[in-house]
Amino acid sequence: MATKEEPTSNPVNPGKPVDDPSKDIVPETAVVTKVTQKKIGHRRVDASTGQTTYKKTPSSALSGSIQLAISHTVAGLSSKPERDVLMQDFQVVETIVFPSEGSNLTPAHHFGEFTFRTYAPTAFRYFRDLFGIRPDDYMLSISRLPLRELSNPGASGSLFFVTHDDEFIIKTVQHKEAEFLQKLLPGYYMNLVQNPRTLLPKFYGLYNVQSGGKNIRMVVMNNLLPSVIKMHLKYDLKGSTYKRKASKHERAKKNPTYKDLDLLQDIPDGLTLEPDIHNALMKTMQRDCLVLQSFKIMDYSLLLAIHNLDEMEKEMAAKNKHAQNFKKGYRAAQSVMDSTMLRTKYSKDLDHWSGGIPAKNGKGERLLVFCGVIDILQCYKWKKKMEHTWKSMIADGDSVSVHRPSFYCERFQKFMGDHVFKKSVVKSQPKRQRGQSSRRTHTTLVGGVSNAESSKALTPAATEPLTKRLQSRPDLLPNESP
Amino acid sequence: MATKEEPTSNPVNPGKPVDDPSKDIVPETAVVTKVTQKKIGHRRVDASTGQTTYKKTPSSALSGSIQLAISHTVAGLSSKPERDVLMQDFQVVETIVFPSEGSNLTPAHHFGEFTFRTYAPTAFRYFRDLFGIRPDDYMLSISRLPLRELSNPGASGSLFFVTHDDEFIIKTVQHKEAEFLQKLLPGYYMNLVQNPRTLLPKFYGLYNVQSGGKNIRMVVMNNLLPSVIKMHLKYDLKGSTYKRKASKHERAKKNPTYKDLDLLQDIPDGLTLEPDIHNALMKTMQRDCLVLQSFKIMDYSLLLAIHNLDEMEKEMAAKNKHAQNFKKGYRAAQSVMDSTMLRTKYSKDLDHWSGGIPAKNGKGERLLVFCGVIDILQCYKWKKKMEHTWKSMIADGDSVSVHRPSFYCERFQKFMGDHVFKKSVVKSQPKRQRGQSSRRTHTTLVGGVSNAESSKALTPAATEPLTKRLQSRPDLLPNESP
Repeated sequence: MATKEEPTSNPVNPGKPVDDPSKDIVPETAVVTKVTQKKIGHRRVDASTGQTTYKKTPSSALSGSIQLAISHTVAGLSSKPERDVLMQDFQVVETIVFPSEGSNLTPAHHFGEFTFRTYAPTAFRYFRDLFGIRPDDYMLSISRLPLRELSNPGASGSLFFVTHDDEFIIKTVQHKEAEFLQKLLPGYYMNLVQNPRTLLPKFYGLYNVQSGGKNIRMVVMNNLLPSVIKMHLKYDLKGSTYKRKASKHERAKKNPTYKDLDLLQDIPDGLTLEPDIHNALMKTMQRDCLVLQSFKIMDYSLLLAIHNLDEMEKEMAAKNKHAQNFKKGYRAAQSVMDSTMLRTKYSKDLDHWSGGIPAKNGKGERLLVFCGVIDILQCYKWKKKMEHTWKSMIADGDSVSVHRPSFYCERFQKFMGDHVFKKSVVKSQPKRQRGQSSRRTHTTLVGGVSNAESSKALTPAATEPLTKRLQSRPDLLPNESP
Repeated sequence: MATKEEPTSNPVNPGKPVDDPSKDIVPETAVVTKVTQKKIGHRRVDASTGQTTYKKTPSSALSGSIQLAISHTVAGLSSKPERDVLMQDFQVVETIVFPSEGSNLTPAHHFGEFTFRTYAPTAFRYFRDLFGIRPDDYMLSISRLPLRELSNPGASGSLFFVTHDDEFIIKTVQHKEAEFLQKLLPGYYMNLVQNPRTLLPKFYGLYNVQSGGKNIRMVVMNNLLPSVIKMHLKYDLKGSTYKRKASKHERAKKNPTYKDLDLLQDIPDGLTLEPDIHNALMKTMQRDCLVLQSFKIMDYSLLLAIHNLDEMEKEMAAKNKHAQNFKKGYRAAQSVMDSTMLRTKYSKDLDHWSGGIPAKNGKGERLLVFCGVIDILQCYKWKKKMEHTWKSMIADGDSVSVHRPSFYCERFQKFMGDHVFKKSVVKSQPKRQRGQSSRRTHTTLVGGVSNAESSKALTPAATEPLTKRLQSRPDLLPNESP
């Protein structure tokens, strides 16, 4: 296993517009508190101790109780026989009380009594199974070693934890977001089944820790960006150009997350992909966006991180003395990619993108692109309401990033297809003899998308029988008289 | 293609308890009418002309308009690009008006103006695709030649049509049943995806013909029993023994449908299946019943038809002069089976049972068993209400066929496992060397169910990490003090 470092990559959207933070700040009674605390949403950081709290619960206690309770519930679920997921499973909520002193069912602990709710346990078990996550791996990842709290979680007001092995992200979500995810589950299930290469977040669990009258809801997701691989550039893209530029503050960071306008400036030629990969990626995105649109979801982003292989080689050549370390690090990265590809039952389809997409930039440098759609729990219905309360009338029509879902969806796809991902030009090939298959198609197209899709496409012949039948029965022909 | 005969097999449940028919008979004003009309539910048969009507619509006009409208809508749908099914698609209803004189969109016809509604067109297109039914095949089957009306449709009050090629059944359903099927669709979808060998009806479409203020709703389904294969015995089984005996009237028919008590008497040893087939069939049934139970569905039946290969040979030997015809008929049957197996994309899984299940009876005769779960559109909620209105207090507790869904579900499975399908005894095999695979398993288990399932089953190791962790942290061990 690679040596662990403080993760530098932030898997979420740090530049995401949020409710006016000032709205959420409760009146401070002491000047001291005001100076030493920083608050965004429910998250506070005490400047002197560095201690983070969420809804006044210390993050350390929160992460401890999550680890304990998830292990406990997953183990409990493992003892139940596997069965098919039913529609009714999406609405199930399982509640377990964890008293500090322990009970017949739960172990003793030192996090203070809490009540733990697991949403749709059977459905999420099915999802984890579909994603190739075995129960014992899930438990080990989450509970074997302490969770690491992300020190740079962005402006969303959420708390972020990463598991010790870099596999999972645990993120606090708002009440409405948790409710919305529950409603989304049947449609999410359908997308997983039909569109297994989906770029949507992989949700592994939805939980609620209730303690001292406070509810802290959390979602467990995949970690899009393995920290072992250095990301040379990182973008949060919405397809909008209105004010979509990283702030000075963001740029000053070690690993800033840039935005749409930055990408247009930095990578004017976009990222060039092999035609088959380009087609498959665009088709996947189109299918994902259709689902998001059908649930009136918007304001989601494409998180895009670029590892530049040629740049990496140059960096390493410059630091020649570190060559040995470089090789070591690179082998680790390779093993992460391999294991990511292998661990999934449906790796060929599902995890097609998770090991990075090979691409080139305008200089012809070889890249590995990591991407996924993030922040999908914002529904237009209540988003719209929020907009009215905190956003002023600065809208210029089409280019404001918050717009109605179908427009948002189309603009998002257009931007990705026009500016981000470009199709490499195929050199004209010598004419092949009939029956001789195209080597390019067969070698680059792992899952055989194009073939599968073309076989599904309806031929004009499909409409023939009716026409024929109508022709043989003049009384059934369309009446063309006015 | 085999020569067409009037189908002798009734694909539905002829002995199904229905509302007291007398309740539905409107007061007759003329004695003549009373004598010459027979009515069950909405279906009437004029004894003198033989003409059937449903809600006073002649069946011939109904079948003509269905053929026209289904062809039209399927062709229309074919021109739209294929896309994934969304949750919202299950609620869509598409309406087209078919004026007699035709319109810009619809052909002229002579069935009288009608409005045609297609329920969940995109979802059913997806189902048809999953079942391997191509749009042009669907249209051809339904509209190339007139539909045949089943002359012996049983006591359900529904009208039944079979397509000329024996592929599809079109059945009228009540308003509540149609509504219920719409609600069922997401769960039905999930079962199709997870349990592809399902024995539940294959629903290909749900439609409504509205004409003269009347709504006639219809469902298009698979035809379980190919009429080209002679069925020597046919049962409608509910797992109940209370009054579950075919009536004298039913027994007098050429091809009666027997019931549970008849089976216990006629086939006391049940039908013996190879262990792997038995396991797979029982597992499939269990998964199907779980879905039915989760939707509070009950009163469904297993339609079971038996083709006796040895009996057939004897019959043919006795009629030696017909030997040539026998061979011809048998070849046709074989080709039907082959095409059924082949036509489906997922034939290996999905249509595992549709070509007949090899079995033996107590005498050791070779059988082909055709079976499927039918009548699944009865929801307990409103069934219960019906029971109270027409069924008296004759219930003896557990053996009345209408009971609460979970009890019904368990009794149904128990009856099928205990009395209908028996597992053949495996002869003790010589000890195999390590690494040498069992030939039986590999030859009989087409889909590899057992293997797939055992690999999915959770091992005790799944619960290990928590235990280990707790052992290493005494503070987390369960508190066993009172």
